[in-house]
Amino acid sequence: MSAGFVGLTLYQPGGLFDSIYFIEEVIVNTRSRYQDIMIARIKGFGKSLILDGWLQSTEADEYIYHESLVHPAMIMHDYPRQVLVLGGGEGATLREVLKYKSVEEAVMVDIDPLVVELSKKYLTEWHQGSFEDPRSKVMIMDGFEYVRKASEEAKKFDVVVMDLTDPYGSEIAMKLYSSSAFQLLKKIMDQQSILVVQAGSSTLFREAYERVEKAVSSVFKHVAEYVTWVPSFAYMNSFIIASDTYSFENIDVNIIDERVRERGLRLRFFNARRMVSMFGLAGLRLEGYNS
Amino acid sequence: MSAGFVGLTLYQPGGLFDSIYFIEEVIVNTRSRYQDIMIARIKGFGKSLILDGWLQSTEADEYIYHESLVHPAMIMHDYPRQVLVLGGGEGATLREVLKYKSVEEAVMVDIDPLVVELSKKYLTEWHQGSFEDPRSKVMIMDGFEYVRKASEEAKKFDVVVMDLTDPYGSEIAMKLYSSSAFQLLKKIMDQQSILVVQAGSSTLFREAYERVEKAVSSVFKHVAEYVTWVPSFAYMNSFIIASDTYSFENIDVNIIDERVRERGLRLRFFNARRMVSMFGLAGLRLEGYNS
Amino acid sequence: MSAGFVGLTLYQPGGLFDSIYFIEEVIVNTRSRYQDIMIARIKGFGKSLILDGWLQSTEADEYIYHESLVHPAMIMHDYPRQVLVLGGGEGATLREVLKYKSVEEAVMVDIDPLVVELSKKYLTEWHQGSFEDPRSKVMIMDGFEYVRKASEEAKKFDVVVMDLTDPYGSEIAMKLYSSSAFQLLKKIMDQQSILVVQAGSSTLFREAYERVEKAVSSVFKHVAEYVTWVPSFAYMNSFIIASDTYSFENIDVNIIDERVRERGLRLRFFNARRMVSMFGLAGLRLEGYNS
Amino acid sequence: MSAGFVGLTLYQPGGLFDSIYFIEEVIVNTRSRYQDIMIARIKGFGKSLILDGWLQSTEADEYIYHESLVHPAMIMHDYPRQVLVLGGGEGATLREVLKYKSVEEAVMVDIDPLVVELSKKYLTEWHQGSFEDPRSKVMIMDGFEYVRKASEEAKKFDVVVMDLTDPYGSEIAMKLYSSSAFQLLKKIMDQQSILVVQAGSSTLFREAYERVEKAVSSVFKHVAEYVTWVPSFAYMNSFIIASDTYSFENIDVNIIDERVRERGLRLRFFNARRMVSMFGLAGLRLEGYNS
Repeated sequence: MSAGFVGLTLYQPGGLFDSIYFIEEVIVNTRSRYQDIMIARIKGFGKSLILDGWLQSTEADEYIYHESLVHPAMIMHDYPRQVLVLGGGEGATLREVLKYKSVEEAVMVDIDPLVVELSKKYLTEWHQGSFEDPRSKVMIMDGFEYVRKASEEAKKFDVVVMDLTDPYGSEIAMKLYSSSAFQLLKKIMDQQSILVVQAGSSTLFREAYERVEKAVSSVFKHVAEYVTWVPSFAYMNSFIIASDTYSFENIDVNIIDERVRERGLRLRFFNARRMVSMFGLAGLRLEGYNS
Repeated sequence: MSAGFVGLTLYQPGGLFDSIYFIEEVIVNTRSRYQDIMIARIKGFGKSLILDGWLQSTEADEYIYHESLVHPAMIMHDYPRQVLVLGGGEGATLREVLKYKSVEEAVMVDIDPLVVELSKKYLTEWHQGSFEDPRSKVMIMDGFEYVRKASEEAKKFDVVVMDLTDPYGSEIAMKLYSSSAFQLLKKIMDQQSILVVQAGSSTLFREAYERVEKAVSSVFKHVAEYVTWVPSFAYMNSFIIASDTYSFENIDVNIIDERVRERGLRLRFFNARRMVSMFGLAGLRLEGYNS
Repeated sequence: MSAGFVGLTLYQPGGLFDSIYFIEEVIVNTRSRYQDIMIARIKGFGKSLILDGWLQSTEADEYIYHESLVHPAMIMHDYPRQVLVLGGGEGATLREVLKYKSVEEAVMVDIDPLVVELSKKYLTEWHQGSFEDPRSKVMIMDGFEYVRKASEEAKKFDVVVMDLTDPYGSEIAMKLYSSSAFQLLKKIMDQQSILVVQAGSSTLFREAYERVEKAVSSVFKHVAEYVTWVPSFAYMNSFIIASDTYSFENIDVNIIDERVRERGLRLRFFNARRMVSMFGLAGLRLEGYNS
Repeated sequence: MSAGFVGLTLYQPGGLFDSIYFIEEVIVNTRSRYQDIMIARIKGFGKSLILDGWLQSTEADEYIYHESLVHPAMIMHDYPRQVLVLGGGEGATLREVLKYKSVEEAVMVDIDPLVVELSKKYLTEWHQGSFEDPRSKVMIMDGFEYVRKASEEAKKFDVVVMDLTDPYGSEIAMKLYSSSAFQLLKKIMDQQSILVVQAGSSTLFREAYERVEKAVSSVFKHVAEYVTWVPSFAYMNSFIIASDTYSFENIDVNIIDERVRERGLRLRFFNARRMVSMFGLAGLRLEGYNS
C-alpha cells in the first residue's frame, strides 16, 4: 500500500527539494583521512562515486559532466599544451584532457590518495587508462600548495580545470574557491590561459555559486557561466569559465565545429552546437528562491 | 541528529530517483470528477498546482515552462491567427499565446471545469487575465471530442499546443497521446500549421516519450525534440514540435531574434539564443536506463 | 520501478529513524497565534490532528493513547471529584475523565482557542460531546497562569492530567515541563492527589524524558513510568505518574479490576491487566542511544 | 533549509507508514543464493543485520527481541531438554536457549550458510560463542526438510522456536508459516512441547499475522499472542505461542519469578513481570486499518 521499494537509499538534500536514489549494491564503503568514500551501484545510473554522502558522478552520465567540464575551455584555446586539473580523482577529467594531441603535460592534483587509488581499481570506465598516459603527472597533495609551489617555479598552464566537490558540499574544497586561491592560480596562467571551474547549481544553490563567481571575476577580465544537464544530479550543473583574452559572448559555432574535427576528438556528448547551447541556457535565477 | 525538517511533504517518484518537496501551506485540497487537485505553497517555489499528486507548475518557474512550450512554435509560424490549446488549465499557456497580436482566436479546451475554476481564483499570477481576453474561447470538454467536432466543421488552426499531464503521470491524458489522436489533429491543421506537445522527460521516462514521438512521427513530415530545464521538475522537460513545412534542423538565430522584436514580445526566459539552445541540448538518452 | 506512491506525505523525525505518513486528504490547514494546525486524513489511521508538523492523535488509535493517559491516575484515586486537564485540546482527555461519575468538575485549560474550536468542529469522534457536559469548564489561557491563579484561590484537584505536545516537539509547552511548574502544580494538589504527565518516548527521546522525570521527582514522593504502544507514533509512549501517597510498585490487579467494574467504565483498551502491563513494560533504555 | 542529513539510508515500508534509518557504515553487502545480506551500522542502533532490505536485528535492541522470543516458551516448560530453532542465523536465539542448563541438545536449522558464516564473523555480540557450545548442533538446510526427516526418525523436541523473516517480508520463509508445516512440526513435538513463532506486527500487518495464527490454531489446542516492543522495528512485535498442555491464560507471576531464579538465568530484559505484561498488552487491532 505504501512504497514499492525496500532497501538502501542515498538521501541527498538538493537545495529546494531532496532526492532519494536507490542503491543496488555497495561496492566500497570506507573513510579516508579526508572524507567518506563510497562506490555503489545506483538504480538506473550504474556504478557511482559518492564522497561524504554527496553523489559525484555516475557511470551512466559522467560523460556528459566530464565532456562539458573540459571541452569548452580546451576548444577555445588555440593550442593547449600544459593543462592543470585540480581534483578530478576519478581520472575522467584527465581522460578528456588527454584527447588533445597538443597536450604535452597534464598535471592532476588530488588531495586524497584513497580516492585516486579506489578510482584506479573500481572506476576503470572513468579513467580508461588515463593515469598511465606518459603525459599524465598525478600529484597527491593539497591543490593550493601545488599552485603555490608551481608559481614559485614560474610554471605556466594553458588550461586549468577545477573539478572539486561542490562549493556547498564537502568542506575540504572550500579553500580553493576563495579569491586568494584564484589570485594564486592567475600566477601560473598567462594572457591566453583559460580557467574553468565546476560550480554546482547556480539556480538551486545560488548564494554559493555567486560567491565563487565573484571571486573569479575579481581576477579575470572575461567571466561567463555555462550549464549542462546531468540527469543524476537532478539539476543543470553550472560551470564558470574565465580568461583575460577570450570573451565568451559570441562563440562561433563554425569555428568550434572545425576545431572539433581538426583535433580529431571522439566525443559522446559535446559538439559545437551543444557548446553554444550550454552558454545559451545559462543564467537561470529563480526570484522566489532563498536557501 | 536526523532530518532537520518536520511536516508536510510532496513525494514524487521521478523515474530514476524520487524527490521530496516541502509544503509550507495547503491552499486548496479537493477532488474533481477527474482528479485530485491541490494548490499548495512549496518551499522555494511558491504557489504550485499539483494534480493527482504530480507537480504541474510552480510560481517560481512556470514562466520557463510556459514560454518554452509556446514560443518556439508560435515564432516559427509566419503569422499565427488561430491557435488551439489542449489542456493548460492554469491559463498560462493561453497568456503566452495571446502575446501575439496576430492571434485572432485562441481556443483552450480543458476537460476539468474545477481546475479552470480554481486556477481563475487562485492562480492569477499564471493566467493574468488571459481568460478574459476577448480573443480567448475556453471550452470545458474532452479535447478529443473537441478536435473531432472541429474537424467536422472544417476548422483549421495555425498552431496547436498540447499542454497535458505527463504521458506517464495521470491516466486522463493518455488518449490524446495516441496515433489516432494525432491523425485527428492533423485534420484541423493545414500545410503550414505547427504542433507542439509537452512530453515529460525523454531521458528519465524514455519509453513513454518515445511512444509519443513515434505517434507524432507517423503523422507529420518534420518532427523534432527540444528541451528546457524546469528546476522544480528536477529534469529537462522535453517537447515535441512537428510540422509538414518547417524543418527544425537549421534554425536561424537572427530570424528568430528579428521576429521576437517585430512581434513586440515581452518575455522573461525565451529569446532567440535560448530557442536555438533548447534544440541544441535535446536528445539525451542514457544507455543504462530502464524504467 | 521506484516508489509505489506519489503525493502528500507527513515527514516526522523520530529520534533514531524518521517516519513518512501518507496523507489522503487535508481537511484543515491553518496557523493560529501559537502554532500550525492541520487536520488531515492519514492512510490507515484516518482523521488526524497535527500541530507544528507533529502528529498528535489519530482516529484509529487515539483511544489507546487517551485511555492510557487518563485511567491509571483516575482508577488509583479513591474518589476523584476535581480534575484538571492541561492541554488536551481535542477533548478526548476530557471525555475519558468524565466517564467517572465521581467527577464533579473537570477543568480543561488550553492556550490555543483555534485548536479547541477546530476540534469541536472536526474532531467529534474525539470529544463526543464532552465540551458540553455541565461538569466541564474549558478555559482558554496559559496553563501556567491558570495554575498560579488557582493556587491563589486555594483550589485543589484530585487528579491533574498534563496532555501537552512532546517535551521535544513544539516549543510552546516547554514551560510546563519545568521544576517550577511542578512546584506550582503541587500547591493545587493535596496529599492524595495524583499527577500524570504525557512524556513522549523515554527510549527514543531519552534526554528530554529524563529532564521531565527529574523535575517531577523533585516535587513528588512517588514517581513511576508506565508505557503504552500507540501504533501511529511508531513507539511506546511514556507517561510519568506521581503522588505523595500512592506508591506504584505493587499494583493489585484485582483491586483495579473491581474498581473498573464498580465505576461502570466502558472502555476499549484499558483494563486491569493492561494497566499492570503498562507499568511492567516501562523502563526501556537503549545503551547505544544518543540523540 | 531542508533535511539536515545527507547520505546512505535504509528505506523500510512499515505497513501504515514508512521508516528511514540512517546508515553510518556498510560492513558487509553481498548476495547469497537465497537473499541479499547486509551488515551495517545504523545511527542509534549500532551494528545491524538486514536481509533482502528488511531490518532483522540491531546491536542496541536485539536482546529485547531474542529474550522475548525464547524465554516465555522455555520458562513455561517444566524441563526443556531438546530444543529446535528454525532460522535464527545470528546465533542469538541459540544463545538464549543455551542459558538453560536443562538443555541437552539445541538444534538450529538455517537454510542460508552465508548468513550463518557472516554472523559468526561479524555478529559476535549476538552469538557470543553459542555456535561452539557442545550442545549446539547447527544444520544448514531447509527447515521444512529437517522437520520431515526428524519426524521419520521419531525425534521429539520440548521447545520449538521459529525465528524466521517476517511472514510479509522475504519470500523464503513462507513455506514454514503454512498449516502443513505446523502439522509436520507437531509430529516432532509431544504433549508437553511448546512452540513459539515470531510473527511480525499483528497490528500493522494484521492479515499476514492472522493467516499464521489460523494455521497454528488448526494444529494446537492452546494458542496465544504476546508482544514486545522492539524500538528499531517501529512497532510491537507479536509472537504466537502454542501448546496442547499449557493454557496461557493465567500465568502466575510468582511461579515464573521462581523459575527464573531457580534456573539461574542472567537476563537483561525478560523477567516475570515483563512476561505477564507481554501477554497483557497483546491483541491490538485497529479497526480503520486495511493494508
